[in-house]
Order: sequence, then C-alpha cells, then structure tokens
Amino acid sequence: MTPPSPSSTGPRELVELTGHVLDSGLFTLVLDDVRALGGDYEVVRFDVGKDKDDTSTVRLAVTAPDARTLDSVVMRLHTHGANLVEVEPARLTVVERDGVFPVDFYATTNLPTHVRVGEAWYPVENPEMDCGIVVVRDPRDGQVTSVRTVPVSDVVAGTQVVCGAVGVRVTLPPTRGDDGGFTFMQSEVSSEKPQALVVQQIADQMREVRAAGGRVLWVLGPAVVHTGAAPAMAALVRDGWVDVMFGGNAIATHDVEQSMYGTSLGVDLSAGRGVEHGHEHHLRAINAVRAAGSLAAAVEQGVVRSGIMHALVSQGKQFVLVGSVRDDGPLPDVHTDVLQGQRAMRAALTDVGFCIVVATMLHGVATGNVLPGHIPLVCVDINPATVTKLSDRGSAQARGVVTDVGLFCAALARELTGAEA
Amino acid sequence: MTPPSPSSTGPRELVELTGHVLDSGLFTLVLDDVRALGGDYEVVRFDVGKDKDDTSTVRLAVTAPDARTLDSVVMRLHTHGANLVEVEPARLTVVERDGVFPVDFYATTNLPTHVRVGEAWYPVENPEMDCGIVVVRDPRDGQVTSVRTVPVSDVVAGTQVVCGAVGVRVTLPPTRGDDGGFTFMQSEVSSEKPQALVVQQIADQMREVRAAGGRVLWVLGPAVVHTGAAPAMAALVRDGWVDVMFGGNAIATHDVEQSMYGTSLGVDLSAGRGVEHGHEHHLRAINAVRAAGSLAAAVEQGVVRSGIMHALVSQGKQFVLVGSVRDDGPLPDVHTDVLQGQRAMRAALTDVGFCIVVATMLHGVATGNVLPGHIPLVCVDINPATVTKLSDRGSAQARGVVTDVGLFCAALARELTGAEA
Amino acid sequence: MTPPSPSSTGPRELVELTGHVLDSGLFTLVLDDVRALGGDYEVVRFDVGKDKDDTSTVRLAVTAPDARTLDSVVMRLHTHGANLVEVEPARLTVVERDGVFPVDFYATTNLPTHVRVGEAWYPVENPEMDCGIVVVRDPRDGQVTSVRTVPVSDVVAGTQVVCGAVGVRVTLPPTRGDDGGFTFMQSEVSSEKPQALVVQQIADQMREVRAAGGRVLWVLGPAVVHTGAAPAMAALVRDGWVDVMFGGNAIATHDVEQSMYGTSLGVDLSAGRGVEHGHEHHLRAINAVRAAGSLAAAVEQGVVRSGIMHALVSQGKQFVLVGSVRDDGPLPDVHTDVLQGQRAMRAALTDVGFCIVVATMLHGVATGNVLPGHIPLVCVDINPATVTKLSDRGSAQARGVVTDVGLFCAALARELTGAEA
Amino acid sequence: MTPPSPSSTGPRELVELTGHVLDSGLFTLVLDDVRALGGDYEVVRFDVGKDKDDTSTVRLAVTAPDARTLDSVVMRLHTHGANLVEVEPARLTVVERDGVFPVDFYATTNLPTHVRVGEAWYPVENPEMDCGIVVVRDPRDGQVTSVRTVPVSDVVAGTQVVCGAVGVRVTLPPTRGDDGGFTFMQSEVSSEKPQALVVQQIADQMREVRAAGGRVLWVLGPAVVHTGAAPAMAALVRDGWVDVMFGGNAIATHDVEQSMYGTSLGVDLSAGRGVEHGHEHHLRAINAVRAAGSLAAAVEQGVVRSGIMHALVSQGKQFVLVGSVRDDGPLPDVHTDVLQGQRAMRAALTDVGFCIVVATMLHGVATGNVLPGHIPLVCVDINPATVTKLSDRGSAQARGVVTDVGLFCAALARELTGAEA
Repeated sequence: MTPPSPSSTGPRELVELTGHVLDSGLFTLVLDDVRALGGDYEVVRFDVGKDKDDTSTVRLAVTAPDARTLDSVVMRLHTHGANLVEVEPARLTVVERDGVFPVDFYATTNLPTHVRVGEAWYPVENPEMDCGIVVVRDPRDGQVTSVRTVPVSDVVAGTQVVCGAVGVRVTLPPTRGDDGGFTFMQSEVSSEKPQALVVQQIADQMREVRAAGGRVLWVLGPAVVHTGAAPAMAALVRDGWVDVMFGGNAIATHDVEQSMYGTSLGVDLSAGRGVEHGHEHHLRAINAVRAAGSLAAAVEQGVVRSGIMHALVSQGKQFVLVGSVRDDGPLPDVHTDVLQGQRAMRAALTDVGFCIVVATMLHGVATGNVLPGHIPLVCVDINPATVTKLSDRGSAQARGVVTDVGLFCAALARELTGAEA
Repeated sequence: MTPPSPSSTGPRELVELTGHVLDSGLFTLVLDDVRALGGDYEVVRFDVGKDKDDTSTVRLAVTAPDARTLDSVVMRLHTHGANLVEVEPARLTVVERDGVFPVDFYATTNLPTHVRVGEAWYPVENPEMDCGIVVVRDPRDGQVTSVRTVPVSDVVAGTQVVCGAVGVRVTLPPTRGDDGGFTFMQSEVSSEKPQALVVQQIADQMREVRAAGGRVLWVLGPAVVHTGAAPAMAALVRDGWVDVMFGGNAIATHDVEQSMYGTSLGVDLSAGRGVEHGHEHHLRAINAVRAAGSLAAAVEQGVVRSGIMHALVSQGKQFVLVGSVRDDGPLPDVHTDVLQGQRAMRAALTDVGFCIVVATMLHGVATGNVLPGHIPLVCVDINPATVTKLSDRGSAQARGVVTDVGLFCAALARELTGAEA
Repeated sequence: MTPPSPSSTGPRELVELTGHVLDSGLFTLVLDDVRALGGDYEVVRFDVGKDKDDTSTVRLAVTAPDARTLDSVVMRLHTHGANLVEVEPARLTVVERDGVFPVDFYATTNLPTHVRVGEAWYPVENPEMDCGIVVVRDPRDGQVTSVRTVPVSDVVAGTQVVCGAVGVRVTLPPTRGDDGGFTFMQSEVSSEKPQALVVQQIADQMREVRAAGGRVLWVLGPAVVHTGAAPAMAALVRDGWVDVMFGGNAIATHDVEQSMYGTSLGVDLSAGRGVEHGHEHHLRAINAVRAAGSLAAAVEQGVVRSGIMHALVSQGKQFVLVGSVRDDGPLPDVHTDVLQGQRAMRAALTDVGFCIVVATMLHGVATGNVLPGHIPLVCVDINPATVTKLSDRGSAQARGVVTDVGLFCAALARELTGAEA
Repeated sequence: MTPPSPSSTGPRELVELTGHVLDSGLFTLVLDDVRALGGDYEVVRFDVGKDKDDTSTVRLAVTAPDARTLDSVVMRLHTHGANLVEVEPARLTVVERDGVFPVDFYATTNLPTHVRVGEAWYPVENPEMDCGIVVVRDPRDGQVTSVRTVPVSDVVAGTQVVCGAVGVRVTLPPTRGDDGGFTFMQSEVSSEKPQALVVQQIADQMREVRAAGGRVLWVLGPAVVHTGAAPAMAALVRDGWVDVMFGGNAIATHDVEQSMYGTSLGVDLSAGRGVEHGHEHHLRAINAVRAAGSLAAAVEQGVVRSGIMHALVSQGKQFVLVGSVRDDGPLPDVHTDVLQGQRAMRAALTDVGFCIVVATMLHGVATGNVLPGHIPLVCVDINPATVTKLSDRGSAQARGVVTDVGLFCAALARELTGAEA
C-alpha cells in the first residue's frame, strides 16, 4: 500500500517540542511518526542548546492530507511530549451511550497531561494510557470540578469527553540522569560486576522512594516461586519493602502450595518450566483456601504458615490478584472479572513511587497499562523477549533487567534486609 | 528436604499398566513419579511383548509411608494410564459448600475415565483435567444418571464427588502411529522438506477429521494478524476449515483494526514485536465495534468488511473470545469474566476432533486445560518455549511446530484451499 | 568507575556531520558516543534542513581531557560518518614488527574512507572494519600507489600505517529509501502479508544486483539442511542466484550426508535441534569425501549426486568453507586455519553486490567483519537473538528477518525460479 | 520416504543391555533407535529387577535387511551401553591413506570401551566420540601395545583400525545418584532456593573432585566478562578452583581489554549483547599483547595487571585458546589452526575430573566432543537453547543450568572462596 501522499495544501498545525531534544533521540521518533502516519513536516525553528545541559526547542509545521490524519499525527506526537503551539480550548463532546466514546475521542498517553477548558488549563488527575479524558462539572454552576482519564468500558452516557488533540498538552518527565536519578542502564555504568551493580541501584532507588514517602509496588509471576525466590520475597515483605503486590492466581497458588506441601515437586531446574502438569497439589492448595474462605482466613486458621502471601497478610499489605482464562480454581481472592480486576489495580496505585515487575508478562503489561508514565518501572525476567516487550511499552521510565529471578531476588533481599534469605 | 523414606510396612496397592509400555517410555515415567511422590515399588509381574506389535503388561506393588501419599501416587499413575488391580467401588463424599471439594477429592486427568459405582463402571462424560468427578443420581430412585467432571468453581453443595483413587480407571488413547494416524513428529519422517511435510500432514489430518464429521477448533493469538496471516486464515474460514475459533480481545481487535484502517502501521517485522505502543488505532477499532454493539452487528453494518472475524461472522461460525487483565476496551463480544469464558469454551467443544493453536500461549494453555486428552492438538509458534510449554501440558496427542506463523498459515491455506491467499 | 570529567581546557577539535542527521537518529548516536568515551561537546553550528528532503549540517566542538581520549572520540565518530573539519595530512608511522600495529593506529570502520597523504585524498581500496590502513608507495619515487586496509595479523614490518584520526574521512552511504532502494524494514511497509512481502523484496533486490552485474553471496548454516531447504537452495544455485557461498564444515557435511544416505535421520522437527548426537552418518560422509580427495572429486566420481554442494560444484560456483574448533573431520575443502579462511573469504568478495546470511551466527559474523559497509546484508534466522546480533554489527545496510528458514528458502526459490523446489 | 521394511530373513545379532534399564529410560531409546535405523527386534529375554535397586538384563534379537544396516544398528546401540552377546575378535583393517578411514570403520562413542583382539579385551585408552579406534602393535612381536581413539584427520596409512561393531564393548558409567554423586537435576531436589542449591551442589562436586586429585576444567565465553564475572573468576583461579581453562580469542581479549582500559564501555546490560561494535578498544588490547609477544609476557611486562588471564598466568595454570573465523587479531596465544587447537585441548585433559562450561556454545560443544563420557559436565548459560544443545550432546553426565552468568559466578566464588568477589 502506498502511504498517502502528503499534500502541502492540506491542513497544517504548528507543534513544539522542548527539552533535551537532540541527545534523547526524541526528535528522530517524532519525525518518524509524522511520516508513518501519513503526515509531512517542515522545521520552522530550531533553537539548539549550545552544550549538553541546555535544552533545545524545535518548532515543526505539520501537514496532512486531511484533518483526521492531522489529528491523528498530533495525538501521536503527544506521546513524545510535543504540543500544539496554538492555545485553544479543548473540544468536548457528550457521550451518547454507556461504554462508547465519541468517534474522534482523544486517546491518552500516560504522561502528565493538561486540558484547556475555557481559559484555564486543568491537570488530568490520573494519567493512564489508552483511555479517554472526561471533564466533570459541578451540576449547579457548570464549573469544572475534575478532569480525569476513563477507560472506554467505564464511560457513561452524558459525560463530556475531550475530542481531537486541540487544547491538550502533555509534559515529559525530567530527563533521567540529570538529577542523579535512576540511570543504571545508561552508558556511564561501570562494567565492574554489572548485575551486582544493578541490584544495588534498584535497592538505592527503593530506599529513596520509601524515604520520600512513596510506596513500592511489586508485580509477581509464578516463576518467583519456582526459582526459589519465595523466602527472599517474604523477607522483603516482612522488612517493609513491598507495599502493594499485583499478580494472578498462579503466583499465589504455587506460593500457598509450597507452604502447605513443603516442596514444589517436579520443578525442572534446567528448563525452568515450572511445575509439571498432572501434579494436583496446586488444586488441593486452592481447594483448601476456598474452604477457609480467603487467603487472610487461611493464614488466620493456620492453613498457610509461610511464603509470600502469608507475609503480605501478616504484615497487612495490600495485594490485587486478577484471574486469567487459564486458571484452575481460582483462589477466592482472585478477581475473575478482568475489568473489575483492572479497577482494583487502579485503586491500589495511590502513592506508588516505584514499580518492579518480576517474571510475568501478562500482569506486567497490565500494570504498565494503568501506571502513570512518570513512575519508574523495572522489569526483571530471564527471558529477554519479556523484558523487551515490557520495557518498550508505556512508561518512559521503564528499564529491563535480564537475569535469573531466583538469584536476583536473593541478592536484592540481601542488599535491602541485610540478611541471607 | 529429604523425601519421605519409603516404608515396607506402610500401605500397599497393586497397579497395572498394559500397552506399549516399553517402547513408549511410559514405564520410565511411572517409576519416576512413584519415587518423586515419596512412594516405592516392586515389579511383581512383567509380561513383555515379544516384538514391537505386542503389548506388555506390568504389575507393580506400590507402597508409601501413609495412605494419603499412596492415594496421591495412585492418582498420579492415572495420568499415565496405570490403574489399580483391585476392583472396588469409588468412595463418594457429599459436597458441603458451594465451590469447595472434599479434602481428598479425586483430581482428574484428561484421559477417558470410568468410575465404579456399586457394581458398574460408568464412563465420565467429559474428561477434563484438574477437575473433580460428580456422580449425579435420579432423585426418585438413586440410580446413577450421569458421571461427569466439574471444576471446583462450579461444584454445588449436596453433590456427590469421587474421593480417593479407588474405583477410578483411566484408558490411554491407542498409541499414535499404530493406525496410520497422526505421527508427523515421529522418527520415520523423511528429511525432504520437513516443514512442507508438516504442513501437508496437518492438512491430511484436518481432512480426515472433517470427513469423519468432526469439527476443527483454531485457537489464535494476535501474531496471526501481525505476521500477515489474516488473509490466509480468512480463506480457511471461507473454505470451511475453521468450525470454532477461540481467542482473546487482542486477535479480534487487531484483525478489526486492520480491516478498518487498511494497514497495521508500526509493525516491526524484524523483531516480530507487533504493533508499537502509542498507536491508538486499536482503541478506535474497539470503540467502533462497541458502538455497533457486537462484531456481528459491525459486520452487518459494514463497519468491518474483511479479515478473520468478518469471515467467521459471515460464515456463521462459532467463536469464543475471553478477556485478560491487560485488555483495552474490550470488544463487546469478549467475556470479561474468565470463569464464564471457560464455561463458554467448554460448551463449544462438542464434536471437536482436531485442535490447532497458533501463536498464543495464554489461550492455548486455557484450551489445553479443557480439551479431552484424545483430541489431537497441534501448537504452532515461532518461539520454541511456547511450543514446548503447550506440548508438554495436557494432551497425550499434543504436537509442536516451531515455524513462522505467517508463512505456515499461507502454506496451509494453499494446501487446503488450493489458492494463493 | 567515574568517567573522566571533561575539561574545557583540554584539547579540542571541530567535527562536522552532514546528511539526514536528524531523521536518521545519527545525531543521537554521535552525542551519546562523545560522552560515553569521556569527551564533551558544544554545538557550534546547526544548519537544519527545512523539510525532509534537505540535508542538515552540524558542527560540533569536541573536547576531551587528553589527546588520546580525543583521538579515540574522533575515531569513534567516524563510524557515524562524522569527520574533522580541519584538513591536515594523515600521520604515518612505520611498522616495527610483523603482526603488530603502532600503538595509536587508526582502527577502521567498514565505510567508504579516504586518507590524506600530502595534498591529496586517496580512497581506501577495500574498506573493512577493525583493520589498520597502510599506505603503499612506489619504492622508486615514493609516490603513493595504494591505500588499503590490512588486518593486524597481516601487517609486515616496514609498512607505513595511518595513526590517529587526523587526515582520515569517511562517507556514509546514501540513505536507504531515498533512491527507491532496499527498504523493506522501513515503516512504510504495508501489513498485507509481511513475510511474503519480505520474500518478494529480497527477490527484487537480487534481481537488481544481478542486472547491474553484481554477484550474490550466500552464507549458510547447517539448519538450512535440517529444515529441508537443501532442494530449494540447490534450485537457486542451478538458476544462477548463488554466485559465492560461505559456510563451515557442518553445512557441507550435512548436505553431503543427506545426498549420500537419502535421509537425515534423527532430525527433531519440533525443537529444531538438528541431527542427534551419536549418529555417525556424518562421519562416514566426511570420510567418503576425504577418500575422494575433495568435494569436486566426490561429485565427479559420483559419490555426491545431489544437494547444495553438488549444485555449486556442477555450476562452477565459488565456495569458501572455514572450519571451527567443534568440527569433526573436516571435509578436505575446509580451511582449518582461520586466518587463511578469512583471507579466502576476503578474496571472494570481488563484485559482491548483495549478501544473505541464513541460519548461521558464526559465519555470519565473520562475513560481516570483512564485508564493506555499503553492500546490503540480509540475515535470516528463526532465532531473534541471532538476527539482532548480526544486524547490529557492521553494515549500515544490514537487515534482519526472523522466520522459518525452510519455508523462507522455499518461498524465495518459488519467487526467483518460478518452480516448486 | 518409507523406512526399509525389516526382514525376518535378514542378518540377525543378539544384543544385551544390563543395568537400570527400566527406570533410566534407556530401553526406550534402544528400541527407538533400532527402528529409526531400519532394523527390527524381538525381546528374547527380560530379567526384570524386583525393585529399584536391582539391575535388569534385557536380551534382544536385532535384525536388519542387510549386514551394513545391522552393523549400523549395533554401533548405535553401543551409545546406549548395549553390547553384542557373541564374543568374537574385532575385525581390523589397514588404513591405506593418511586421513582416511576404511569405509566401514567403527565410529566411537565417548563411553569406556574395550576391543577384543585375539583372545583378550583391551581397554581403549582415551575414549572420545566420533573417532576411529587404532590398534598399535609392537613391530618386533606383533603384540598389542595400545588401543586408542584417533580422529580421522590424524590417522596415518599403515595403521590397523577397528571395522564393524563385532569385538567392541562399551560400558555405561554407574548410574548417577546411586552413590550419592552428582544429582542436582534429579527430582529429589528440594524447592527451597533451587538456584542457590545448584551452586552449592556444584561447589560440593568440585571439592570432591579436587580432594580425589582430579583437575577442574573451565570453558569460558566472553559473556563471562560482559556480565561482570571476571573478578569472581579471577578469585576462583587464585583460590585454586581452575586447573585448566579452554576458550577462544574473545574471552581472553575482552578480559585483557577490561584490565587495560578499566572499563568495558558500551555493554548493554538490558539486552546482554556485549560490547557494541565499533568500539576499537579490543583491537588495541590485542595489539598490545601482540607487541608483548604473549599473554605471559604481557603479564610479566605489566601490560595486563588484572583479570582472568592475569590470574591464570600468575598462578601458572594451563589454558588453551582456539580461534574462530570471526576473530579479530588474534592474540598471539590463540591457535589459528582448529585441528591443532583440538589436539591442544585433548592434550590438556589429563586428570580432568570435572568440567564446567560457562556462556559459550562453540567452545562448549568442542569440549564435549573430546571429553570422555564419564567426566561430569555442567553447562551454565542464560539462554536455554545453548544449555539444551550442550547437555544433549556427548556426555551422559552432562547437566544444564539456565541462569544469570554474572550472579552465578559470584555466588559460586562466594561459596568456594568464602569471600565476596
């Protein structure tokens, strides 16, 4: 298919990008995207920073064959922090049916975002990607009381939703590394013991976040148990390094199974395949917790006496388990409706200042979907494809670590809790 | 941890295994499992087949330190087709609470299974693994009217459930290859064009199944669309080679997106990463189908005019879409409750005689969970880990093919429909 | 380790980069590298192209704490096509010992390169990366007769070698895609049947190269045989699409084995592991060719009657086989000395205009090492890691295709030769 | 292709297999191989062990359509430890040309092997797979002085070589685990901290081997340096846990580069890709060692002051570096002729009692080729495919560990040397 030929007579918008435009590679992405979506551009102004600490400002005239394409280009440029130069109020359209957006709704990034309503810019309260933006008004005086993202499944008829890209501005988080922040993947990393260094840097980051009053979110897959990391994770929970845990039925089930049966037979260490099929211990573990009524009840009744879930319950920490179509059981605490599960995850994000995803693609991607883009996100897995997929998505702050999950968790626990797990 | 030391004074059961015991590798698995679970064995009788077409019969005395362990060993041996020699009726226990099995419930395999109630053996109607077995009686006379599997989430108080391994027998499907059946992975495969040969053998198997009145089930992941296989798949649907389709929100969404926007921009062919983040076309596609009300309505209204879902709707074929926690939207046809999704999948298995899983780990495993073990299952993926994981689970008939999904579907469509897709 | 702190009082050079600096991502790489190597920069001039067809020119003042670091930075920038602004003659140093360069020798890129000697710029005859540059003079009058690359193992005492980065200029090949060239990985690719499209584009590229009098080089690994692609490859050879073939002992051995024994028993299609260990057919095949004296003799004597090597010999095509430490045998045609093997590969590159690497990491990397950077290079493998590694190295023209080798070769042969292989 | 139909009237041999035939899975392999090679079998006798500690004896009558096929079957069965029942002397043929075996030469396994010459059984001195067996006699009296393996490249005219499978017996090493030996991959492994347990078990095995006077062989790939494991490896060398090291040009070069330049810039931790191309530090490191004359000289002259090679030289440990076609340089210590390299590796195997391969496919396979089958071999890599390939080949004692190389080496060094590396 031939891409639409850009037309110089089509609609045109001025777009501006400010920051470390050149050395961050952003500019290349911006130009690629303009053309990939069928638009064209002209560099109107380029104020280049003299040295590496100066910011640059680029102004582009973007054109497209039709208004819809142009809108699409401008929305995409938002994902890179580029905004329209013209200041006009956002166009608001009233939703006609529950669960359906207007056809030209603004699709969100996960970056800090402002919307112009009337003469003022309103911050979007909970940046989340792939949502719409609703403007909530006081019914008495029509004053804007809240501007926030809403997923398509939750939008209700009568709501005002932002349409088109006009009147929406996004802000890139400050460049990593400028402020002594989270930079372990950058090229200045020394090569002396890199994995050990990564462990230390993640530990430092967690310490900083906790010192600043932030909460640490862990997203865990069942390989955490299969690789023997459960004791290390439980130690991290007990020592206060896990404020919230997201996962599925499998991680909680295998953790409970190991607690109840003392062993996770059939684990194939060489291939890392996890528990062999046909092993019904996990079913009995699920059944026992169902009989108790919940994980908390199972802990209270002494059915579950160790492990990650035991530690979370004992320490009064929050966890959100969301089911999948491949689950057995599931455990009574698992959300079987995935939309309700997503809502529970969103509700648990308050004050989260750091997120670490270990050995799970499914729940890792789900977390990336709802996590604001400015929260640092680290993905740890032995499979490079999983790390790449998670790091590529969503957060500008995402970092990947390809390593052994069992040895990694043990090393991190040793670093943070000072004890051998 | 030291495995429990086997005791010669503990409980003991006689177990028998008949068939191509030696050359199929089963015997090794049986002995490994006895010891892995803490039991011990003595070979009591070994009637070895003289040559490769004779069956052998092995009788083992299995011991364990306690009755519970012995039960666990015997249940595990069921997964290999080994049964207790003694004929006694199954022990039935009444379920006390909805969604909770008795503590020593029999955990099913997916093999053809019979249960002895009173003096008779009853076939289990719908073999499915990791379930319990309920015995349903006529309330008037107590006669057994049905013996069937039930997942723990669906069991209701008052039901009789089989407990322990006594009175349960499983049957191995006839060995593949003895009957000219499905053998493409066996060593007699010629090396001339192996992948082309695999395509041809799968096509032959589908023809046989269809000729015998069986239905073909396809389980599809989004990479089917990303690798350009959608036209080939649509041709297979139109030509009658797809009776049922299982999938998630992603495959249907990206298929519709491609139909609506004519292109799936941003696909990175080299890395096979699929659609880049930030591309909001998929959200607009979802929104459009939500506005139409369903995929069928979207096809009828001309919103969706091509692709796999269009072909399925147009041909009146069945599809079951089950959501996951990472979904955007989702499409209105997607089951957001995973237990309801599993039930819909089970209900669609009637007369399925062949199952092919393409490019999906999540829905492939979910299908393997509910599929009876005697139905041939082929898993196709470019990632060997996915193929191994799917082939290892569940079905004794599972086969894996590591290949390019796009080229594979095109070759299979060429073979079956006689046309270039 | 702390990177050396850049000093504004240290040595300083002006460097210039011209071309599609912004949209090609080059500028980001340049700035990253300056800092990674311990230098610093200031943007002195930035003439930005108004629209996407204009070139931009950037001039940087690069500083470093010492002259050696600055030299190292400037050499690195050469790999991105950035050159010193000042025009001074190259510094030449006489080699003192065979096989050892002067300590500050200029390490080459594989880009087109010129060296200034006296008042003139001389083109480097055979750009190859990780070499030195020797200046050859007529012994009678001292006139420069040749400027060419030499690997460290081949340099001889008394030769003049370029040292430092002064007086060396590199030229980036014209941006792909500007001239309707080789662009299949670019974002304008339609999503309709991407793998089929890739096959067609590679075929087109080969047709163009052949039409222009260029030769096509294939680098083959043993999986070509294991996946059943040998007949397709032989057809391509017979139809004139293979001018030179590079490989190791394994590809030739397994090809001959298949020809001699009619079958390659033990190939495990599911895991793609190739021929099982313990299968001694390959040893007998090697022994038979050793008895004949060479592959050509074995073909002549009728020992080898089919396959890729048979086709190459029959058509009089060139092949270079270089051994490795894991080889059995090897075949008599295999270079057991790797330096001699590298020299033989270099000698076979004349007029090569296209290179395709199929299913081999080792010989693929070796080929990338000696291939000039302007020759298009395609890497085909089912393993994404191999494709990434090969594509990342060396050639600015490298492209990767992750696909099934067997189906890919069959499809390419069908496209180019018009016949089913 | 149809496999040759077995004929009951063809040649026939009695073969016997003794040991833990049933529970080790061997019997299945034996029967599979008979049929895969075109033979057929009848079970003539089966003395089955009563319980798991008894050995079983199986006697098979093996038939084949012709003598050559039967020979091929019997040779293959040797790889599983099955021998001919009849005791006849081996058939010896005189080699006619250097480097060429007689056509029906016996191809070796790497198991302990005996050859019958006249009335006596002679042990083969250096079991190595994929070789021939030569019988050396005293020229004065024709007495057998030595029976040993020889690779085809090294056989000389006039030598007597064993042909056919008659008169050759192989012995399986005692089953692992029966004697408290090396069993970490077996199913009795506890799930508590499995990777930590693996580290401990490898350490224990090394301690045992060293206590028994055996030497420890390490085979290292360049990722050992890239993952930061060089200090841990150097500590292991200094503490006496590395007696011999095999590797290529890359591991030694990057180790020296890191020692000389203090940093290995450009290492991409997230993707584990190792050093970026274009970085010429490795070339300067190579050049510096070439200038010194050898690694030992470079250490002596203070050019190389730290790292793995420095530790090996300083401690007077043996190392064999063998080149490959992709090498730059190479270092002066590298064997550029791969046959000479193989010979140097063989010569260094004396008294090796344990072999560990870390992060190298090429040199790992090469080592597996020359290592006797009874020497325990552990393969460590983050890539499961590499581990599988190495573990599948050669040694019946091979074990695979999929883990992070950097964290693994650090943990092993901590376990063995008692210090943080």
